[in-house]
Amino acid sequence: MPSAATLTTMFAPRRIKHCRVCGTAVHYVVPADDNRERAVCTACGEIHYENPINVVGTVPVWGDQVLLCRRNIEPRKGLWTLPAGFLELGESTSAGAARETDEEAGARIELQGLFTVLNVVRAGQLHLFYRAKLLDTRFDPGPETIEARLFREDEVPWDELAFRTVRQTLEHFFADRRSGRFEVHAGDIA
Amino acid sequence: MPSAATLTTMFAPRRIKHCRVCGTAVHYVVPADDNRERAVCTACGEIHYENPINVVGTVPVWGDQVLLCRRNIEPRKGLWTLPAGFLELGESTSAGAARETDEEAGARIELQGLFTVLNVVRAGQLHLFYRAKLLDTRFDPGPETIEARLFREDEVPWDELAFRTVRQTLEHFFADRRSGRFEVHAGDIA
Repeated sequence: MPSAATLTTMFAPRRIKHCRVCGTAVHYVVPADDNRERAVCTACGEIHYENPINVVGTVPVWGDQVLLCRRNIEPRKGLWTLPAGFLELGESTSAGAARETDEEAGARIELQGLFTVLNVVRAGQLHLFYRAKLLDTRFDPGPETIEARLFREDEVPWDELAFRTVRQTLEHFFADRRSGRFEVHAGDIA
Repeated sequence: MPSAATLTTMFAPRRIKHCRVCGTAVHYVVPADDNRERAVCTACGEIHYENPINVVGTVPVWGDQVLLCRRNIEPRKGLWTLPAGFLELGESTSAGAARETDEEAGARIELQGLFTVLNVVRAGQLHLFYRAKLLDTRFDPGPETIEARLFREDEVPWDELAFRTVRQTLEHFFADRRSGRFEVHAGDIA
């Protein structure tokens, strides 16, 4: 576990300065019956918890090829990714993965099994990828994507992938495909 | 997808009234380049995203028995649960599951594989349970637990379980144990 000071640095963008209920300034203290610093309102006492968020996506497959999207947004603009994005309230991880595939690639898919569950602790994220079967090869990328195209394993731009979870998911995918058996892979990105 | 109005009702406890950066009142509008209502600050423009949060826990096993904890806190005070709680920033899902097992049951475990990944969309939660091997049978429950004890399958208090994800995880566990093969089970709680 990093110290509270390290966490402050790591997750600086999420630090809370004012209470979401009443707008008063918060301070970071350990509430009664707790063991971690939380943003607590100095007026109404509201405790603001901050938790990791989920990123959901797919490995869309067409024959021996997978679909990658070239990012048109920061971070990692210009690099290649599997279609993925933040899970929203009101949707399941599988529904979110399908939605992101539609939004980023405009691809029609049949969603298959959960495939990777990868912690990115330093970023405060959990990434979950599903396998998906492409139903055709007409793609219609949204504004977040420069280009969506299919790659065989020997064509994957390994040095131009946007995220380590994408690399690890692709590595697991090609290894499992060779072995003839897809399993769920859970792990941490160091 | 529920409508925005339904979401407002479903996730009322999380609704944001003031900006976390400057304390000014927010309004819910669809930001440019977005397709959902977000709490946007009327002064500084900060966008406040609200996302599902993760609950992590274990199925602690001793021979043919599993460890359950009787809850000493609301919700579902007095009912039985697997040790579980909210994933914190700065920890992985496996580390969080081990921490909760220590905090709620005071049990010493060797963590094993990821076992269930269950969406509870209505609650805005994703529950992830790991299998775990108990190293001994001395338990030391924390303040959130009335009692921690071992149950054989025919002793499990099925009508007094606190959460549907706990029931589903236990059902998968006993079914997989009978089949002799543990797999990762992903799904949704309706």
